[in-house]
Amino acid sequence: MIDPLTATCPVPGVETERVLLGHGSGGQLSAGLIAGVIGPALGAASPGGPLQDAAVLDIGGLSLVMTTDSFVVTPRFFPGGDIGMLAVHGTINDVAMMGAWPAALSLAYVIEEGFPLDELRRITESVGRAALAAGVPVVTGDTKVVGRGAADGVFVNTTGIGMRLPGVSPDACGAKPGDAVLLSGPIGLHGVTILSVREGLGFEAEIASDTQPLHRLVRRLLEVAPAGVHVLRDPTRGGLASSLNELAVTSGIGVEIDEPALPVPETVASACEMLGLDPLHVANEGCLVAFVALEAVDSVLAAMHEFPEGEHAVRIGEAVEAHPGQVLMRTLMGSHRVVDMLIGEQLPRIC
Amino acid sequence: MIDPLTATCPVPGVETERVLLGHGSGGQLSAGLIAGVIGPALGAASPGGPLQDAAVLDIGGLSLVMTTDSFVVTPRFFPGGDIGMLAVHGTINDVAMMGAWPAALSLAYVIEEGFPLDELRRITESVGRAALAAGVPVVTGDTKVVGRGAADGVFVNTTGIGMRLPGVSPDACGAKPGDAVLLSGPIGLHGVTILSVREGLGFEAEIASDTQPLHRLVRRLLEVAPAGVHVLRDPTRGGLASSLNELAVTSGIGVEIDEPALPVPETVASACEMLGLDPLHVANEGCLVAFVALEAVDSVLAAMHEFPEGEHAVRIGEAVEAHPGQVLMRTLMGSHRVVDMLIGEQLPRIC
Repeated sequence: MIDPLTATCPVPGVETERVLLGHGSGGQLSAGLIAGVIGPALGAASPGGPLQDAAVLDIGGLSLVMTTDSFVVTPRFFPGGDIGMLAVHGTINDVAMMGAWPAALSLAYVIEEGFPLDELRRITESVGRAALAAGVPVVTGDTKVVGRGAADGVFVNTTGIGMRLPGVSPDACGAKPGDAVLLSGPIGLHGVTILSVREGLGFEAEIASDTQPLHRLVRRLLEVAPAGVHVLRDPTRGGLASSLNELAVTSGIGVEIDEPALPVPETVASACEMLGLDPLHVANEGCLVAFVALEAVDSVLAAMHEFPEGEHAVRIGEAVEAHPGQVLMRTLMGSHRVVDMLIGEQLPRIC
Repeated sequence: MIDPLTATCPVPGVETERVLLGHGSGGQLSAGLIAGVIGPALGAASPGGPLQDAAVLDIGGLSLVMTTDSFVVTPRFFPGGDIGMLAVHGTINDVAMMGAWPAALSLAYVIEEGFPLDELRRITESVGRAALAAGVPVVTGDTKVVGRGAADGVFVNTTGIGMRLPGVSPDACGAKPGDAVLLSGPIGLHGVTILSVREGLGFEAEIASDTQPLHRLVRRLLEVAPAGVHVLRDPTRGGLASSLNELAVTSGIGVEIDEPALPVPETVASACEMLGLDPLHVANEGCLVAFVALEAVDSVLAAMHEFPEGEHAVRIGEAVEAHPGQVLMRTLMGSHRVVDMLIGEQLPRIC
């Protein structure tokens, strides 16, 4: 197996000196680009090592979290959301996964000349509604315009800062053998929705993106079990499989999940079967996976169930000492299969 | 004159329901887009009113500054710099202009499929060198890839956070009648360099972008005269004319500058004359304009001269009570002319 944290880029077996769509997938190629090109090029300017989705900063005695995301999703409007809402939720969730409460967002557009002002207005209104509903203000912005054909419509960057919640340990990102793996809601909805709209598959009437902010849910979990919640992660690009593999590598543990326990909506299962996709690799935008100490599992699950965004939360497996860095799934048939990280690109421009 | 802070978009006289290149110019159309479309669409989600280049935030009792910028400059490499260095300097300078010391940067790429990995490496190395030289770490990042033709190479977003320098008043953005207007260095170098390379004008051997970080200079100025420095601004897109006009409107003062005092390098003057450009509208990336109380002028100018980035600092004019919102220039001929904000687009993709 390729260790995404040490792999050089191009990843062995992929002969390229050019950026591939897969480098943006959130899977192994993405990890290789960050670890093999971007990290070494930044060198000492990035003292925390290869860039992560979010960073913890000590500024003036405060423990702050900073995260940045660009959004290039196509189509820009889809059942359940749009690029503006997605940008707000995605950045809020990256702050929340670090155990922090989001305090402010920035908003930067790169716009193609000729883009309809009305669509820009609708996207911005959606940013505004999502930010207001989440209670996180948009405080600063930037607008660049490039000529026709130099960008595809509009790209949105949101950067967020937040403050660590009290009592949360800054190294709360270490899963331990014996931890239960909890999932806050069904998987695959966002990716299948985007794909269905884009390809006109006809599922779009029955399905919608799960995009939603998770910071209130996270705050509650950390109130209930500040020391028992060891890891929080939102399985976006690359899906649940990529998140679990990353966590298995960074925490040096094995992960075992139960296929029968996985909440895969029927429409997601049908769409994935038809298209030959693995729901474990499909992007989510409104659920989180938590590694939780056994003694805290009941209280954390109960707390999740208090929230609409966690009402379908379930336990899907556990962290083990065996096979560190590897994720195994006990299948419906009773056998085990290795769950790999997404390698190339399954669904470009999913977020 | 159109008030950029209240103008609706489309600006009167410009009939369009589409985004124009000029909406990214940093001039009147940009101001109209922000005040007329983006601000109203964000509504209550942006409690500080129309988005500014940078915001002051009170988080956990600290006075922080946040700013975001996307960079789309073409060509990506030019005499004196490249898109990566420009991104670091531009964001550091926006933090510094708020009287803050930059603490951390985020880095987000939108990359076109097929982009050479080697060029991505060179750009990222430049980001790393610039960040290291400035003493500001890059702490988090994001990478998205879009298909061929969906972006022009690579777009870079940098977002910065910083902490207000001690003793600096949060409302230090009010120029007062009687203030002297100081400029830290020559104008027009960045814009003319980009244009010269892009159009093959032949000036590029004699000229280079002025891109440089100004946070150390700003720190010194605010040490020397914490209460005497009323406004700091880096005249980037839209040039010195646009910055002065914006400040005249927001502070409700008139501005008068002296043409003979303006530091316009000979190459900039020749290039602008040849191309019919006004050097006052050309973008800068390494100088600042300061409105300074009369009694602090000598000490602030002397402090500027201590730094390479301020060694050519000069006094170019003053703030007056007359003609609020308007900028006048006393010309070489002894007459007065109105200095307008840039209206449309002079040089697209300048930063």
